[in-house]
Amino acid sequence: MSVIAKRIALIGTGLIGASLAKAAKAAGSVEAVVGVGRNPANLAVALETGCVDEVSQDPLAAVASADLIVIATPVDTAVELLPGLAASARPDAWFTDVGSVKQPIVAAADAARIGERFVGGHPIAGGTLTSASAANVDLFRDRTVILTPTAATAPQVLVKACALWESTGARVVETTAGIHDRMLAYTSHLPQFVVFALCAAVARGGELPAHAFGSGFRDTTRLAGSDQEMWLAVSELNRQAIVEAMDGFGAVWSELRAAVDRGDTGAVRALLDEARVGKERAGR
Amino acid sequence: MSVIAKRIALIGTGLIGASLAKAAKAAGSVEAVVGVGRNPANLAVALETGCVDEVSQDPLAAVASADLIVIATPVDTAVELLPGLAASARPDAWFTDVGSVKQPIVAAADAARIGERFVGGHPIAGGTLTSASAANVDLFRDRTVILTPTAATAPQVLVKACALWESTGARVVETTAGIHDRMLAYTSHLPQFVVFALCAAVARGGELPAHAFGSGFRDTTRLAGSDQEMWLAVSELNRQAIVEAMDGFGAVWSELRAAVDRGDTGAVRALLDEARVGKERAGR
Repeated sequence: MSVIAKRIALIGTGLIGASLAKAAKAAGSVEAVVGVGRNPANLAVALETGCVDEVSQDPLAAVASADLIVIATPVDTAVELLPGLAASARPDAWFTDVGSVKQPIVAAADAARIGERFVGGHPIAGGTLTSASAANVDLFRDRTVILTPTAATAPQVLVKACALWESTGARVVETTAGIHDRMLAYTSHLPQFVVFALCAAVARGGELPAHAFGSGFRDTTRLAGSDQEMWLAVSELNRQAIVEAMDGFGAVWSELRAAVDRGDTGAVRALLDEARVGKERAGR
Repeated sequence: MSVIAKRIALIGTGLIGASLAKAAKAAGSVEAVVGVGRNPANLAVALETGCVDEVSQDPLAAVASADLIVIATPVDTAVELLPGLAASARPDAWFTDVGSVKQPIVAAADAARIGERFVGGHPIAGGTLTSASAANVDLFRDRTVILTPTAATAPQVLVKACALWESTGARVVETTAGIHDRMLAYTSHLPQFVVFALCAAVARGGELPAHAFGSGFRDTTRLAGSDQEMWLAVSELNRQAIVEAMDGFGAVWSELRAAVDRGDTGAVRALLDEARVGKERAGR
């Protein structure tokens, strides 16, 4: 494996960032990683587990010596940090990120005049554990990473981002930030808000003892353990697409509720047939 | 283990019925089981796997020689079959069932004048596989079975039903059919319809390639593989409670959609806090 980056400044050493660093180092596509974060305990874990080689609490100092800056913070923090990182980076350094909403960060890169050296990324992988202690060298193996280059993105930057992710075992696909955000609104953000709403409805549902819940409920609502603040940020940054998807769900819900209420077996069955189509779309 | 039933007529040899027969025979609480069904292949599997000792396609003949009749068909079939089973059973035979909606079957037992000898049951266990080939002697171990005796139910019938289920390793709780149906509307039927609606919304969401779906979507929508006809029957038999729960969800959904749309972080966070309460209510 040829070296894609000599020194990464990894901004954010949570599950995704630490796993990417660990996997790329194991693959030999990256020589050294300096992990940057605000939480000393998490940085210490990232260092002890070999995900990173150095740690720093100063992002601007860390980026100054890096040829690649990987932004792996929550999406809102990424957008806030990007201008400063762009200003402190070497002029030949390139940038990528791992956030689940792409239009705001792509726009921030353009605004910071690093559009040529930036390519947005989003690995479709993760878990409800979010710290470096859960870092996994195989987290991205056989998983998809979506890259969202723009017209401004330099071809060699896209090539390097592809090679970086492929070195972790991931499959790379490319699309626009706008298509990404609309797709993920349906495939990831909508399911998350549906699960939150289901659990909130249960909370309002009066006395419901734990023994009345089966494994179906627990599987369906696993995502309810996801980080609240992360989802608040996603809901703000991808508001338009999420509201559109929520309205799509709301229309189905009204139809289903009305069909159940009037005992219209044919209409309920037709909606359940549509559900089967949607379930199959996700593959296995 | 003392013998609770010498000869069970098991009406329906799907996952739940076959697992109950297998577990009770293994525990020694039941001596012999005659399995009744319409599908010869499934009956053959139930016989070959030792879940039942005999098979029959004639429910009325099978019940005539049984001291316990266990109705383990889909809920709508159970309500249809009950009058005939009651008329053909020995006058000292007692009855139970395993359906996920309890008021209609309890009412059917009363109407058939076997209220004294009937106790409704619902094991909170199962899976998306529904045939006898998935039968599991440990399916009910450490799971809850809800029994719904009425004022008419003879105390010794309730005692025997408890002992039968406890012999399989289950924990038994008692409540009324009405409370059961309202509880399960929230804890089981609502989640199922939410998953169906989510998948239908995804089907309508335009081009969504499989790679855009993560494990979160697949976990959340596992229940979309559930049997359609079973859920159509449940939606008819528990219509009032399900519509009430659907309206509870609908109210939360409207609030959440409006809060996301207007960027009201405080309101979104408050709903996510409610979601946490609902999730915790289900235990682990």
